[in-house]
Amino acid sequence: MSTARKTVSLPGRFAMHRGGHLESPTLAYETWGELNAERSNAVLIFSGLSPSAHASSSGADPSPGWWEDMIGSGLPLDTDRLFVICVNSLGSCFGSTGPASIDPATGKEYRLDFPVLTLEDVAEAAWGVVQHLGIETLLAVVGCSMGGMSGLAYCVRHPGSMRAFVSISSATRAEPFSIAVRSLQREMIRSDPKWLDGNYDRQDGPIIGQRLARKLGMITYRSAEEWRGRFGRERATDERRGGRFKIEFAVESYLENHAQKFSGEFDPNSYLYLSHASDRFDLAEYGGSLASGFKRIKLERALVIGVSSDILFPLHQQQELAEGLGRVIPATEFVPLDCIRGHDSFLVEMDAFRPVLCDFFDSCE
Amino acid sequence: MSTARKTVSLPGRFAMHRGGHLESPTLAYETWGELNAERSNAVLIFSGLSPSAHASSSGADPSPGWWEDMIGSGLPLDTDRLFVICVNSLGSCFGSTGPASIDPATGKEYRLDFPVLTLEDVAEAAWGVVQHLGIETLLAVVGCSMGGMSGLAYCVRHPGSMRAFVSISSATRAEPFSIAVRSLQREMIRSDPKWLDGNYDRQDGPIIGQRLARKLGMITYRSAEEWRGRFGRERATDERRGGRFKIEFAVESYLENHAQKFSGEFDPNSYLYLSHASDRFDLAEYGGSLASGFKRIKLERALVIGVSSDILFPLHQQQELAEGLGRVIPATEFVPLDCIRGHDSFLVEMDAFRPVLCDFFDSCE
Repeated sequence: MSTARKTVSLPGRFAMHRGGHLESPTLAYETWGELNAERSNAVLIFSGLSPSAHASSSGADPSPGWWEDMIGSGLPLDTDRLFVICVNSLGSCFGSTGPASIDPATGKEYRLDFPVLTLEDVAEAAWGVVQHLGIETLLAVVGCSMGGMSGLAYCVRHPGSMRAFVSISSATRAEPFSIAVRSLQREMIRSDPKWLDGNYDRQDGPIIGQRLARKLGMITYRSAEEWRGRFGRERATDERRGGRFKIEFAVESYLENHAQKFSGEFDPNSYLYLSHASDRFDLAEYGGSLASGFKRIKLERALVIGVSSDILFPLHQQQELAEGLGRVIPATEFVPLDCIRGHDSFLVEMDAFRPVLCDFFDSCE
Repeated sequence: MSTARKTVSLPGRFAMHRGGHLESPTLAYETWGELNAERSNAVLIFSGLSPSAHASSSGADPSPGWWEDMIGSGLPLDTDRLFVICVNSLGSCFGSTGPASIDPATGKEYRLDFPVLTLEDVAEAAWGVVQHLGIETLLAVVGCSMGGMSGLAYCVRHPGSMRAFVSISSATRAEPFSIAVRSLQREMIRSDPKWLDGNYDRQDGPIIGQRLARKLGMITYRSAEEWRGRFGRERATDERRGGRFKIEFAVESYLENHAQKFSGEFDPNSYLYLSHASDRFDLAEYGGSLASGFKRIKLERALVIGVSSDILFPLHQQQELAEGLGRVIPATEFVPLDCIRGHDSFLVEMDAFRPVLCDFFDSCE
């Protein structure tokens, strides 16, 4: 484990949103920059489904983070003046308590005995970390993809405890296309005979199901337009080519590389829990409508960024989010970006995202 | 087997486009209407990947066909004046020779010893059926989805033997998004431990892999827009609901119903062969460019229909096809339809498709 990763055990019993509880769960997080004397410069980042808290490198861990180009000295989340916190989601497997953790009641891994996980739980656990750090008011909550929904849950449940909210390629709730994709990804893992109802061998788990799920993920994270220009009908050149039904086109080789890279790292049960939580979150559960949900939010400014080629969190959902926020937070800005790299653009299209986030945080005092 | 299904054994050795051959393969087909004395009223239909030759009901087989609302008395393909032929693709499993057929050389099923299949082979086999029927010039070749590419192969290889070509939701060749989807569908089947390298037990085959592939199929055959209006975040009401990670949303229930319906019907090896053939077809292989491919086509009129919400054969590919045809066939019409049911629209949005095909065939003499 890297020395950059800090952990905190939340005190006492942590009640889960849909029932059940965890005894003093552990949350892993990393921070960059220094908390100022007024404790007024903290930015909390919620990640997407699969990343760890390692959003950026630091002295303690020089390996590149998942948002390396966004956090650091002189970057949009400028660590010369901001104190940036990224928490590994509750239920994940990179230091935070999740299905792969030991259940203190039994001395064994939770696996499917882990209680139903919601993004409200992810938000409340991060709230616990923020309390632990002694921060009363966050300068901003930033959420990407699933993290945007976790961030929305955080804002709705702790109104007034943040001055700004930034949602990137997220939504108020999932639409049926995204639910269908995630449901199928979960089924791929559950259908792998090595899944064993969640009781897989840690040395011999449902890797094949995970690889299939990862490939479907990549198909929905990028865009047809990007691949048209990048791969066209180019043939694969590597040694995996050949053989009936084996890899023949460059795009197949690309998917295979991503699937290989992913597998084994992420706990399959964690994936199932977080994926399901993404389907279930719905801002309208707060008071019965999206409008009533938005009304509970209290902050000074909001920024909603979306990408035209995103098929998983499509642009019209970003617009819906921006319009809803705009009705309660007049200083809401909606920035639709014309990037071709789909949902993943916020990870790779830095030239498009950086200036928008720079402008926003430069004007945060 | 229904009495509407006719079969013909093509005489002699059938050479496959990428090498190998079949000894006198059988082709299954159905016909509707009567061939006129001049043999000038025949329309040949190429189906998508999975349908049989049973495109419509008839006296001999009253069960509804896959294009029931399009073929018949008073319908766009009006059997009062047209002689309509639909051939089950070579390599399929509904009466035509394919991987599930007996290899006369061994007395056993071909399975993966079936030679590499291309859409050129599908086209040439249909050509054999047309010759068998004594038809020199077709009034029209009509192809839907994969069948549009088979039809294009037919037109390129037999210039002048048809007066018109109708392409519906097809393309000159697959783009990387569609290749990625089909490659993943094939991998789902191949990853099922019961696939056994194609040597599955006929009573206990790779049903789980087939169901996963079918669900991914449905996700790409329909559209996010349709599902948004049709399902939203509606919960499933049927008995399958409940249990961790089980079906919860109506869209999941819909996919499950389609997967259940599909499984067992279609030979998994046939699916793999036809899916791969769809990836590989490329009009540009005729002379080295799309332009050179188009130049080999000789007919009087062409019609290209596409749908705005299609993500598998997107509208810009229909436009490319129409423009290419238009450069060699001045009487080429391009009809983009604004249907929300995605690639499957030609099977379900009859009110949009019928008038276009009516107009086209009404003006065919």
